[in-house]
Amino acid sequence: MREDNQESPAAGSGQALGALFGDLGRFDGSFGRCAAALEPADPGAAAKASELQDKLTKPRGALGALEPIGARLAAMAGSSPPPLPDRAAVAIFAGDHGVISEGVTPWPAEVTAQMVANFCAGGAAINVLARQVGAEVLVVDVGVASPLESSPRLVQARVRDGTANIAQGPAMSTSEATSALDVGAGVACLLVSQGFNCLITGDMGIGNTTPSAALISILTGTAPSEVTGRGTGIDDSMLAHKVDVISRALARFERLGGGRSPLEILAGLGGLEIAALAGFVVGGAAQRVPVLIDGVISCAATLVAKALCPGCIDYCIAGHRSSEPGASVALKALGLDPLLDLGLRLGEGTGACLCLPIVQSAARVLAEMATFDSAGVAQKS
Amino acid sequence: MREDNQESPAAGSGQALGALFGDLGRFDGSFGRCAAALEPADPGAAAKASELQDKLTKPRGALGALEPIGARLAAMAGSSPPPLPDRAAVAIFAGDHGVISEGVTPWPAEVTAQMVANFCAGGAAINVLARQVGAEVLVVDVGVASPLESSPRLVQARVRDGTANIAQGPAMSTSEATSALDVGAGVACLLVSQGFNCLITGDMGIGNTTPSAALISILTGTAPSEVTGRGTGIDDSMLAHKVDVISRALARFERLGGGRSPLEILAGLGGLEIAALAGFVVGGAAQRVPVLIDGVISCAATLVAKALCPGCIDYCIAGHRSSEPGASVALKALGLDPLLDLGLRLGEGTGACLCLPIVQSAARVLAEMATFDSAGVAQKS
Repeated sequence: MREDNQESPAAGSGQALGALFGDLGRFDGSFGRCAAALEPADPGAAAKASELQDKLTKPRGALGALEPIGARLAAMAGSSPPPLPDRAAVAIFAGDHGVISEGVTPWPAEVTAQMVANFCAGGAAINVLARQVGAEVLVVDVGVASPLESSPRLVQARVRDGTANIAQGPAMSTSEATSALDVGAGVACLLVSQGFNCLITGDMGIGNTTPSAALISILTGTAPSEVTGRGTGIDDSMLAHKVDVISRALARFERLGGGRSPLEILAGLGGLEIAALAGFVVGGAAQRVPVLIDGVISCAATLVAKALCPGCIDYCIAGHRSSEPGASVALKALGLDPLLDLGLRLGEGTGACLCLPIVQSAARVLAEMATFDSAGVAQKS
Repeated sequence: MREDNQESPAAGSGQALGALFGDLGRFDGSFGRCAAALEPADPGAAAKASELQDKLTKPRGALGALEPIGARLAAMAGSSPPPLPDRAAVAIFAGDHGVISEGVTPWPAEVTAQMVANFCAGGAAINVLARQVGAEVLVVDVGVASPLESSPRLVQARVRDGTANIAQGPAMSTSEATSALDVGAGVACLLVSQGFNCLITGDMGIGNTTPSAALISILTGTAPSEVTGRGTGIDDSMLAHKVDVISRALARFERLGGGRSPLEILAGLGGLEIAALAGFVVGGAAQRVPVLIDGVISCAATLVAKALCPGCIDYCIAGHRSSEPGASVALKALGLDPLLDLGLRLGEGTGACLCLPIVQSAARVLAEMATFDSAGVAQKS
């Protein structure tokens, strides 16, 4: 890493963000409280925003996707024009995955912890993109399998040391899944209480495209081969093996029978960072702030969030279309149209972070553009 | 417009930009000098950037389109990592079009001048988006047909009071086209001399999708019906009439026979702001700075620029895919893949402006990301 990245203005206060989260215990029950508090977005505010858009000095609809996004932001906040989402935080939830013992990735497990250190030092892609758009970065250990050095940017909220191997048994207990949901929801609530008004989902976990594909497969009823991709870059034979591992995990889970509630699906096939991300989405939605959804891991988590608490989708904006096939399947099932399609497949929150200026622009248009009347511009005949 | 938009930091110095451009005479010959000075981008620097990208803490290629854009920025600057394009200026070239007397748009001609006033006051969409991304806005009158109030943000460089009706005769003389090319190239050179290191193309001109479609049709060999769109929003019957008007203009031009040089095509079928934009593209390229290309008008101008001076394309980045069909035809012929596809159809530079943070991110990744070695992250086996 070149010199003093950590000294950049955007990174400054992020350094101390982790310190806000000392008392892990207070997250207990956060998810349930958020799910219970969640209100639907306000269609009246959206209608008001759309009406205003039609008076602004541009042809109707000429700002394309910015217009419905602006109306959705108004609906989320319950006011038009909506507040500018100018204080954004990326929360990167990190966890390890027992399923990597099946050989689904060429990357060694220790990379999860090494990348957490890289995030904390400010040298990863997400740090760079967050600096570019003025977002803060927070890292949350919800399930890394190895020790981590403490850092002012790191929240220590580990539920367990990585998941178990989903090809052989459940990833975690439902109680552990609930704890991870609580961590995510709690982090969202704390960030909003600190003045952040836009949340960005990020993830880190070697092997985590495997549980994501399993979740997307079962939650959308799509064959594993259609939702499984090359993740960080695997060859044809490892891809075929990965599809087989996911199929075995799904078969194993389905043999259990039972109610197959969303929580059981999450515990059976998920990841700790995925569970926390699902909680984070619901937590942000309960606080009525926009939640920008990143790639395939975040999409899988958002499917879980939707299964647990459908109304949360009102507050989700899909940042980008990851090149992982499961992302497109999940986005379709979520009914979310992604803003960007740049072929990213990195996770960390990178794709969602890149769309932040577009979301901010959508809000700013409503707050700042002149109307035909105010600017004295003639309208079309 | 709400309150004091002009007081925002990004707009501040833009207020005085126009004042730099007092002496129109000095633009004479600018286009020719730029075209002669243009150097190809440096493939060695691009290769160096790609090599560096493969060492950064991410799977190879995982940043998708950001990686080739980063390499192209290095090639433009001739150095890796490339400079951060952190001082961006949008130049909005404005002109009127005689062809509107054929009834190709429902908007009255005076809207061109009214929107110029709106740009100068800071209330248009482009002002809002430029403030969001920290770009300056400059307005250049190269061919508006009515009087304009002076403004510190306005460059008075009018070549003539709007074009003639292209359905009946040439839009302008080749000498006027050359003057407009000089204005654009001169503006680009002056902006770069003032420290701007990223140029954004913008346009304003009621009726200007008509000459743009004519230019795209003739320069790509595509039927008028395939490149003509609804512009600011016209109904089916006006669309059919617009295709007919464009077909008549092309037939009229083709009956002239002759060499049909790019300059003759520009003069015969173009617009003054389109000519200036073509000069602006070549001027930016000659200064080796990235030029972010906006929608269909800018795409038509870039086709003209490429026909006049093919090497300029090395320095062009397509900001977005306008929903106008001609934009996609032109982008394909230019060999440019747009970064955004948000259904915008406004012009002014709005789509290109929205992509600025993505371009900046591509450069910043190369300058700031840690390598596997520097961060102590293990690589895949």
